[in-house]
Parts: sequence; C-alpha cells; structure tokens
Amino acid sequence: MARFFMAATNLAGGRAIIRGRDAEHIRVLRLRPGEEVTLCDGDGMDYIGSIVRVDENESEVEIHRTEPSAAEPSVRTTVLAGLPKGERADYLVQKCTEAGAADIIFFQCTRCVAKPNNIEKKLERWRRIAEEAAKQSGRGVIPHVYYLEDYGEVLNKAVHCDLGLFLYETGDRVSIREAIEQKPDAATAAIITGPEGGFEPFEAELARQVGLSICAMGPRILRCETAPVVALTALMYGTGNL
Amino acid sequence: MARFFMAATNLAGGRAIIRGRDAEHIRVLRLRPGEEVTLCDGDGMDYIGSIVRVDENESEVEIHRTEPSAAEPSVRTTVLAGLPKGERADYLVQKCTEAGAADIIFFQCTRCVAKPNNIEKKLERWRRIAEEAAKQSGRGVIPHVYYLEDYGEVLNKAVHCDLGLFLYETGDRVSIREAIEQKPDAATAAIITGPEGGFEPFEAELARQVGLSICAMGPRILRCETAPVVALTALMYGTGNL
Repeated sequence: MARFFMAATNLAGGRAIIRGRDAEHIRVLRLRPGEEVTLCDGDGMDYIGSIVRVDENESEVEIHRTEPSAAEPSVRTTVLAGLPKGERADYLVQKCTEAGAADIIFFQCTRCVAKPNNIEKKLERWRRIAEEAAKQSGRGVIPHVYYLEDYGEVLNKAVHCDLGLFLYETGDRVSIREAIEQKPDAATAAIITGPEGGFEPFEAELARQVGLSICAMGPRILRCETAPVVALTALMYGTGNL
Repeated sequence: MARFFMAATNLAGGRAIIRGRDAEHIRVLRLRPGEEVTLCDGDGMDYIGSIVRVDENESEVEIHRTEPSAAEPSVRTTVLAGLPKGERADYLVQKCTEAGAADIIFFQCTRCVAKPNNIEKKLERWRRIAEEAAKQSGRGVIPHVYYLEDYGEVLNKAVHCDLGLFLYETGDRVSIREAIEQKPDAATAAIITGPEGGFEPFEAELARQVGLSICAMGPRILRCETAPVVALTALMYGTGNL
C-alpha cells in the first residue's frame, strides 16, 4: 500500500487533502478512487483510508481508521551526537533514521572541530535528509533533528530516559550489551556519542555522575558517524526490535 | 602503543624492517629506540616488539612475542553483498571493516544495476579503503575484498560457514536475532544482502534450499549499503563481541 507523510493537522474531519509532491506522486503511481493508501503523521500514527478524488493539483483521501505505525520500534530512542564535520553529519542522520532513531540531536562539546556556523541552514538540510530516509525505509516517525549548545542539557535529556547509554573509548565501562540487557523493556532510550576527537575525561565523568551507563562497543574504534548507528542497532537487537 | 600493518613475510628472523609511509609515521610520532610497537600482519596476528633503530628511510623493530590480535571478534565473518552502485560500495567496505568483517565479497545477481566494468580497478580502490579503515579502527585483520560473478559460488561460500544469514525483505523468514541465537558460538558466519533492487524470489528460494537462514531485520527497509552493517552489528552483539 502506498504511504504518504503529512502533518496530522491536515487529517481533521476524517478527510485529508494531499497537495504538492505527494499529489504528483499519486498521479505518477496512477492511483484511482477506491484504492487504499496510508497517511503517516510522521509522529508514529498511521491513517489508513481510500482515495475519493484525484485532481490535477490535489487528491482527497477518506480516513477509515488510525493505528500506531507498525514500523516503529518499541523503544523511542534519542541519538545525541557531538557535532561532526560536513558529510559525516548527513550520513549520521540518514543511517540513524533507517536504524530507528526517533530524535537526532547534535551538540557542542570540548573537542568538536566542526563549527556550528549557519546551524539553522544545516538543520534544514538534516531535516530534509531525515524525512527522505524515513519515507524510503517505511518509518512511521520522521526523526526530529535539532542542535544543543549546552552539554548539561544533553546529559539531562539522557537522564530522563529509561536507558541512557554513553559511549566512551577508555576507562571503567560495561559492554553495551550488558547495559542494554539490564533494561530490555526500556520504552525510552538515549545514545550519546562523541565528535571526531572523542570526549574529554571530565565530560565522561559528568555522564557517569548523573547515572548514565558508560559503555564500550568491543575493542575496535568506530568513527564518530559509525558509532551511533552501531549502538542503535545493538539497542534494537537487545530490545527485540530486530 | 602505536600499531603498524605489514606483511608477515617481513617479520622473519625476529626483526622487522619498516619502510615507506609507516617509517615516516614513526618519525612523525617521534618514536625512539626502546619504545614498544605492535606490528599486525593484517591476518589476525600481532607482533609486539621494540624499536631498535630509526633512520631517515626505514626503522627496525625487534619482535619479542606474537599473539592473536585482541581487536578481532570471535566470529570470522564474510559479508557478501550484491554489487551496489558507486559510492555505496565504498561506504559498505569502510563501515563493514569498522564493524568487524573479515572478508567482503561483492557479487553479481539478477537485479544488480551496477555494471562490473573495470572491476579490477574498483577492487584496488576498495582494498585501499579496507586497509585504511582497518588501521583507523585498530583491526588485526585487513578484510579481503573480492568479486564473484557466479551466484552459486556465493551460496556455496555461505553454506560452509557455521552460520549463514540471508537477508530478505518478504515471505517466510525468521528474525535475525532468532537465527543468531541458534548459533551464538559460531566461529564462522556469512551475511548475504542484495543490491538496490533486492533479490529475485528464485534467488531467495535457492538460498533457502541450500540451508541458509532467511532473515528479517524488523519492519523497516534498509538501504543496500546499510543492511550489511546492521546485520554485522547484530551478529557481533549476539555472539558476545559488542
């Protein structure tokens, strides 16, 4: 069944009007009145309905029922990544969307080499990448992408999740598997990873003090854009979502 | 401790001569006689020794002991991927190297859109990427990268592993977690994934008939360059290597 993303506000009254690129897509797919489509609100709900009208510039869908998107994992995961340079951030957004992240937050920390110049423009770009990847992979949620300048806020976000994983390369750590297996039924999780240069010891120490699990992912060193995808996959596996 | 890759043949006689870029690297790191270094043969063995001489164009290391590389996972994994287009192949090689693959094989199948033109030149490029990624991530093995034209040979490679995972998007499948949990002590494993267009049903059916596990990875659809990394991470998690 064809799937389209649209803001929930358009779905009032049991009918939805589809315009713009999605309307064009409906014409390209030669969908006709009577055919079933799924409209996703991009926030985890699917609206299943049938087409009642296909016009030049818009189509109309009558909604029959709503249900939570079946493609969404049981754990709502926020990926928090030290802002990496250039293409690495694009890649991170795309792959973490495919792998099931619900929110992707870039943040500033001591060893970041990337400058947060034009961050609004970059956020626009990352949000487009997230939307594209969510559509392609059949997600029911378009991950929210944003930016935090305050490291304290980053830790604060993670502390409020059932499972807070802080990936770090050295010192006293548990394996990510051990950390996940302590909370296999977590409904919310956070994954924090560093930028190219990693974290300063005091940043890791702060994470430990607020109660996050300081985790290792085996003896191999992962690039800053690879680590979140691997951690997210480990989480999906350990919580029964793979 | 600094790590350098070199062919095992250079390590004869308990002494190793380091030339070229690695010798330059030793000078850049200002390593001095007496300092310990690790030389990897790129095939899973580490040679630990100390520098005895640093010259303009070469350095000499005296080997004290050899041991299996601690960075290698317990399961030797061959990733077999339907040949994807352009940069996707580069990405796949880099990320699968980081995630712990021992061999990476691209193959031809019905729905491949990428043409195997200049495959020798491409293989050279992929091997360089694998070597670079192996060094950066501290691997003890540089994955062997090669190309197979015969789909029968692909299945044959997988059949001879303790665990053969065939990733497929539809039909009767087990979850990848179920498949891995049946053989958590596998010493060898194969992961087969399709190209952009996926597999033809008869290709999946052949895989089933030769006894591979036909696996799903959740309800989300992964890109052809993402699926092998996610599957490899699931395997590392399930076999206790994460």
